[in-house]
Amino acid sequence: MNINDTIVALSTVPGAAAIAVVRLSGDDAVAIAEECFRSRFGKKLTEQDTHNILLGDFYQHDTLLDEVLISLFKNPNSYTGEDVVEISCHGSVYVQQQVLQSLQDLGARLAEPGEFTLRAFLNKKMDLAQAEAVADLIASESEAAHHIAVQHLRGGISNSLGKLRERLLSFASLIELELDFSEEDVAFADRKQLNELVVDIRDTLKNLLDSFATGNAIKNGIPVALVGKPNAGKSSLLNALLDEEKALVSDIEGTTRDSIEDTLTIGGIQYRFIDTAGLRKTKDTVEAMGVKRTQEKMDAASIILYVVDPQTQTATETVDALKSMHREDTTLLLIINKKDLLSKEVIKSYTKELTDLEAENLVFETMYISTKNTTDIEQLKTHFSWQLQWNTGNALISNQRHWAALQAALKSINEVAKGIEENRSSDLLAIDIRQTLYELGTITGEVTADDILGNIFANFCIGK
Amino acid sequence: MNINDTIVALSTVPGAAAIAVVRLSGDDAVAIAEECFRSRFGKKLTEQDTHNILLGDFYQHDTLLDEVLISLFKNPNSYTGEDVVEISCHGSVYVQQQVLQSLQDLGARLAEPGEFTLRAFLNKKMDLAQAEAVADLIASESEAAHHIAVQHLRGGISNSLGKLRERLLSFASLIELELDFSEEDVAFADRKQLNELVVDIRDTLKNLLDSFATGNAIKNGIPVALVGKPNAGKSSLLNALLDEEKALVSDIEGTTRDSIEDTLTIGGIQYRFIDTAGLRKTKDTVEAMGVKRTQEKMDAASIILYVVDPQTQTATETVDALKSMHREDTTLLLIINKKDLLSKEVIKSYTKELTDLEAENLVFETMYISTKNTTDIEQLKTHFSWQLQWNTGNALISNQRHWAALQAALKSINEVAKGIEENRSSDLLAIDIRQTLYELGTITGEVTADDILGNIFANFCIGK
Repeated sequence: MNINDTIVALSTVPGAAAIAVVRLSGDDAVAIAEECFRSRFGKKLTEQDTHNILLGDFYQHDTLLDEVLISLFKNPNSYTGEDVVEISCHGSVYVQQQVLQSLQDLGARLAEPGEFTLRAFLNKKMDLAQAEAVADLIASESEAAHHIAVQHLRGGISNSLGKLRERLLSFASLIELELDFSEEDVAFADRKQLNELVVDIRDTLKNLLDSFATGNAIKNGIPVALVGKPNAGKSSLLNALLDEEKALVSDIEGTTRDSIEDTLTIGGIQYRFIDTAGLRKTKDTVEAMGVKRTQEKMDAASIILYVVDPQTQTATETVDALKSMHREDTTLLLIINKKDLLSKEVIKSYTKELTDLEAENLVFETMYISTKNTTDIEQLKTHFSWQLQWNTGNALISNQRHWAALQAALKSINEVAKGIEENRSSDLLAIDIRQTLYELGTITGEVTADDILGNIFANFCIGK
Repeated sequence: MNINDTIVALSTVPGAAAIAVVRLSGDDAVAIAEECFRSRFGKKLTEQDTHNILLGDFYQHDTLLDEVLISLFKNPNSYTGEDVVEISCHGSVYVQQQVLQSLQDLGARLAEPGEFTLRAFLNKKMDLAQAEAVADLIASESEAAHHIAVQHLRGGISNSLGKLRERLLSFASLIELELDFSEEDVAFADRKQLNELVVDIRDTLKNLLDSFATGNAIKNGIPVALVGKPNAGKSSLLNALLDEEKALVSDIEGTTRDSIEDTLTIGGIQYRFIDTAGLRKTKDTVEAMGVKRTQEKMDAASIILYVVDPQTQTATETVDALKSMHREDTTLLLIINKKDLLSKEVIKSYTKELTDLEAENLVFETMYISTKNTTDIEQLKTHFSWQLQWNTGNALISNQRHWAALQAALKSINEVAKGIEENRSSDLLAIDIRQTLYELGTITGEVTADDILGNIFANFCIGK
C-alpha cells in the first residue's frame, strides 16, 4: 500500500446534477489544485487558511473548464489527516470526467475504493471499527441500520472493548514481569482481580456476540419468506405489501418461478421479502428447482408468511404444511387469503377446524385478509415490528469480521479463566492473555495485517 | 413565484456515495441550519465568517444523524445572492432523506427545479442567458457542447448583444426626445450613425442565427441515420462504431424493427446514431411502420450512412436508392460492406459500375469496409469530424428560445432600417426600435414574463 502519493476521486454519485465534488488528498493536494485553479480575487490556495472556501475558475491546460468552489482542509485537520482539497464543480458528466483527468495529468492517482478512509485510519483519525462503520453508514437505508452504524462511528464498540483491553494489558505486563522472577515464585498480578476482569470481559463479549443476530439482521434486512400453494395469492400479497407491481401476477399456476426480492421498511427496520415458487409436487424441472429454492429460502428466513386459499386447501392440509414449516428461531404467520371470496360460514368452519387441529400452537398469529383490503395489509405490517429491540442504547454487532474476532477472543479468555482456576504457571497464562489481547486488537485495528485491511477497504465505494 | 422563503434541495445525484450535499438558500438558511447543527468546537454558525467550513454533528430532534461539514456563504456572496448553507453529509440514502426532512420540519421548503438559479437571476447574480447556460453546462456530455455552455455562462452572447442594445437604447432616447419637439421637426438622433448601428446589429444577429444550426446540433448531438437493405450489416456497423453489442444482430431479415439510438463522441462532438428498420417493400404491418420511421429519420439526419452489401444489391439499385436519399444539407456516405466476403474482381467491377452511374456525384464519400476491420471503422470515424468548426472563439447559439428571439429582433431591426431608408417619422421609428430592444432584452432577461421564467427553469434539475 502506497500512502505517500496524492489521491483523487469523485466523492458524489456519478451522473448529471447541480454539483459534484472531487476530492484530493495527500502532500501535493494543494499544489496540484493550485495548478489548475485561478481564484476570483487573486488569492492563492497555498496562502489560504484551513476550512476556507475560494471561488474561482478551473482550467484544463489553458481552457476554462468550469467555475468551481474549492474547500481547503489542512493537515492534520481533515478527514484523512492529510492536506485535503474538495473541488465543488458543476455536476456535468463531461466536467466531472475532465476535472478528474486534469488532476491525474498533474500527478494525482485515482484512489482505490475506501482509500481516503484507509488513510484516515492509518493516520489515526479513527480506529478500524469506526472506519468500517463509515461504509455501513453510507450503505444504511433504514433507521435501525443507520442507528447501528452511527453508534459504531462514535466508537461504541471501540470504547467498551478498548477499556477492557487496556486493563487486561496491564495484567499482561505484570504477569510477564513474573516471568523474569520465575525462580522466586512471586505473583505481581493479583489473581482475584484478574479473575474479576476476566468475568467482565467474558460478559461483554457474550453480550456483543448475542447482539449479532439482531445487528446482522438489521444491517442486511430481515428475510421474510412468502410461502404457499400455487395461486394462493403470494404474488398479490407481495404487491400489496410493496404497494407496486413488482411480481408477475397471473392466474396461471406456477407463474412465479424466479425468486424476486424486494425490501420494505417498517418501523425503521428493513425487511427483505422473498416471493417463492409455489409449493407443490411437479414434474416440470424448472419448477422443481423453484420448489427446492423455496425450501432453502424458508431455512434462511426469520419470518415465514404461509398464504392459504381455503377454497383450494383443507384445514388438515394447512396444518400438515405448517408442521413441515416449523423451524427454530423462525416466526410463522398464517395468512388466510381471499377472505372477500368466502362466506362468513366458511371462514367460521375453517377457523374452527384449524383450532381443533391446534394450528394456533404452530403459528405466531393467524390472519384473515384480502390483498385488496388496505386495512388488512396495514394490520399485517404491524405484526412485523413486534420483536426487535434495537433502540436500547447498547451497541449491536453487525459485522461478520467483528463476530469472528469476538468468538476467538471469547475462546482465549475462557482459557485464561481456566488457567486461573487450575492455577497454571505465569508463562501459560501470559500466552492466553496475549492471544485475547490480539483478538480484541484486530477489531479496533491496534493489530492489523495488510490483507485484512485490503479486504475491509475493498468493499468501500470509491471517493470515501 | 414566492422567493421570500428559504428553500432546500439535494444538490448532488441521489444514491449512495462517499458524500452528498444538501443546499439551503434564503433569509432563514443560517438559522435553520443552526437549529440542527452542533459545531465540534462550540462555534456558532451565525458568528461565522462567510466562505468558512465548520465540522460538527447534525441532529434530528435529539438523535445524532450524522457528522457533517457545513459551508457558509453569506448574502450577497453566494450563488443565489441570498444566505446559502451547504451541508456535506455522508452519502447514505437514509441520511440524505432525513437531512432534507429535518430542514423541512424546521421551515425550509423543498426547492422547485432550477429555483436556486432562478433566485440567482432575480438577485442579478447572472442574466437569463447565463442562467440557461448553467442548465446546458450540467447537461453537457461532449467537449463541444461544454464549450458552448461555458461561453454562454461567461456572458458570451450577453456581452455582444448587451453593448449593441445599450447603443440602440441611447438612440431610442434621442428619437423619443424628438417626439417632444415634433412640431419643430428637429432630429437629435443622427440618422447616419443610427444606420451604421442598425447594420452592426443586423450583422451580429445574422451571424448568431447562422450559428444556430451548428450550435443546436452540437448541443443535442448530430443525428446520423444508418440506412440500408435488410441484412446489409447496419446493426453490425453500429455495434462496430459503438464498440459494444447494443443492437440485436441476427441473420434473419427484418430483425431490427425499433429504432435504437446511441451516442458516440468523435473529436469532441456527440453524434446520435440511429439504427433504422431495413429498407424494403413489405406486407408486414409492423415492419411497414419501421420503414416509414426510416424515412422520417433520414429527413431529420445531418449525416446518412447508406450501407450496401454488393452480394445482394446491384450497382444500379444502389444508385437509385442514393438518388431517393438525396437531401439538402445532408451529407451522404456510401458504405460498401462485407468487403472481406468479396473478391477483388467483384469490388473492382462494382466500383466501375458505380462510377459509370455517377454515384460519386451523389455521395460525399464512398468507403469499402468490413465491420470486423477496426482500421476501416476508425477511418470511417474520421469522416465525421470534417465539417463542424466549433472552436473558433465565436459564440454559437444553441438555444431554441434565443433563436426565436433573435429572429424577432432581426425582423424589427429590418423595419428600423427600412424606416431610415424611407425617412419615416420619429414615432414610427421609435416603435420599431423599442420592439428590437424588447426582443433583445428577452434573451438576457432585462425583459421577462413569469411564464417564460417558469418554462425556462422547469427544465432544470432540482438542487440547482
